[in-house]
Amino acid sequence: MILIDGKQTAEIIKAELAVEVENIVKNGGKQPHLAAILVGNDGASETYIASKVKACKKVGFKSTLINFPATVSENELLQKVIEINNNADIDGLIVQLPLPKHISEKKVTETILPEKDVDGFHPLNVGKLALNLPTFISATPYGIMQLLERYKIETAGKHCVILGRSNIVGSPVSILLSRNTYPGNCTVTLCHSRTKNLEYYTKQADILIAALGKPDFVKANMVKDGVVVIDVGITRVSAPGTEKGYHITGDVDFDDVAPKCSYITPVPGGVGPMTIVALLKNTLLSLNNNLITNL
Amino acid sequence: MILIDGKQTAEIIKAELAVEVENIVKNGGKQPHLAAILVGNDGASETYIASKVKACKKVGFKSTLINFPATVSENELLQKVIEINNNADIDGLIVQLPLPKHISEKKVTETILPEKDVDGFHPLNVGKLALNLPTFISATPYGIMQLLERYKIETAGKHCVILGRSNIVGSPVSILLSRNTYPGNCTVTLCHSRTKNLEYYTKQADILIAALGKPDFVKANMVKDGVVVIDVGITRVSAPGTEKGYHITGDVDFDDVAPKCSYITPVPGGVGPMTIVALLKNTLLSLNNNLITNL
Repeated sequence: MILIDGKQTAEIIKAELAVEVENIVKNGGKQPHLAAILVGNDGASETYIASKVKACKKVGFKSTLINFPATVSENELLQKVIEINNNADIDGLIVQLPLPKHISEKKVTETILPEKDVDGFHPLNVGKLALNLPTFISATPYGIMQLLERYKIETAGKHCVILGRSNIVGSPVSILLSRNTYPGNCTVTLCHSRTKNLEYYTKQADILIAALGKPDFVKANMVKDGVVVIDVGITRVSAPGTEKGYHITGDVDFDDVAPKCSYITPVPGGVGPMTIVALLKNTLLSLNNNLITNL
Repeated sequence: MILIDGKQTAEIIKAELAVEVENIVKNGGKQPHLAAILVGNDGASETYIASKVKACKKVGFKSTLINFPATVSENELLQKVIEINNNADIDGLIVQLPLPKHISEKKVTETILPEKDVDGFHPLNVGKLALNLPTFISATPYGIMQLLERYKIETAGKHCVILGRSNIVGSPVSILLSRNTYPGNCTVTLCHSRTKNLEYYTKQADILIAALGKPDFVKANMVKDGVVVIDVGITRVSAPGTEKGYHITGDVDFDDVAPKCSYITPVPGGVGPMTIVALLKNTLLSLNNNLITNL
């Protein structure tokens, strides 16, 4: 069993990016610049944004963090998005979700210029992804693809079973792994809450991608020997007596399942650390006006 | 075994549309108007366009057919698209594909205003489809959904196996049948040219959608009893001595497979006739500015 170390892989990619940025700047090019908008002061959102800003600094990106109070009007937020769209110095813009209920996430997402939408959430970018046209691939799918690629995991002709049909993980990953490239060319089965007899499908998986948000859901008796397991779940499970009062648990019962796997991602330290790397990569692609044609 | 009669279903829907158009016009509303651009004089394309114009007439739509010679420049074609985009009387625009090699189909498709893109090929509309936002569903996927719905075929929790990952059939149908609506909520497996041991998957199918373009490919020994078969293939197979010199053959060996099916579409007369209906429905939706949220 090989442990897919997302933390280490993310560090390697960040080091590569730092060299790339250094070379760009050395040759008189523009420093990549990511802008992030945070509304309100939700603890988890603040933590995510802080990690993103920190990662920018680490690879030599400029970053701008704009904080709005939770009471900001939708219109004021949209005006700021438009201002950043028009700011030629800024290559990528993300708006940390979720937003307060009085603001339409859809409207905000669709106002971000597709060329600066480094989160890859704009419908135009999702469509380009589905059509295999150059675009920004969103963070988690991109992180998964990078892990498969960096660990040289064979995907062509493999049966990939995906648990969860969300717009941000299951659905785009099913599209990416179906297409005629590497990583890709999998026969993909997309399972979800309405799937009957889930084990029937998980037992068939050469590659199992779990993205349902149910802690420790996948057990050893649900998979076959030699399976590759990518665990996308990150649920906070209460853990009284620990320092934080909780711990992060994946969708896969790691201790139970790992012995049967050829490869497996841990949680934390698997897919999670890769998502920020995706954001950095996309921002650099935006700067280079050199959207992803394949990974 | 129940034969899914696409020809009859298409006639029923056209009759419904004709009533709807009559009511709109009677109440002082605008007559729906579809514009179609045909470049060159490919026989098959001319036949398709003629059927579309005829169908418009039948349901009371206004239609405008613009013919360009095969030598038209890309720029001239794009100018015409822009002119139609700006023409408030025209609700829907289609450009018959394929186009001559010197013209970029991608550029033409992306120039059509998404709000008038009744073929549903613009990346923005494909993205909205993937995100389950209101949009135009393209002709063949829409036709398949309508057949499942009109024949009240149960889809929730069923295993749907799709053969072929094309942008115009397999891929969008896999998205549509995965989502949380009716028809939908299937566990979907998308197979393609790189799938190993195809029968392993086809034998699991409760619903089998064949869209590979290989005449008579699916045989009885590849499916289980009671399967629903939707045959999207339309290949011209040479038939010397017949009037046309060819006949149209599906991806499924109908005579062999039909006895095992609960439902099956014939070829011709199955999915084919439904595609034009989709175009008419989309044009009416465009007029009503009332894009499809669910089917």
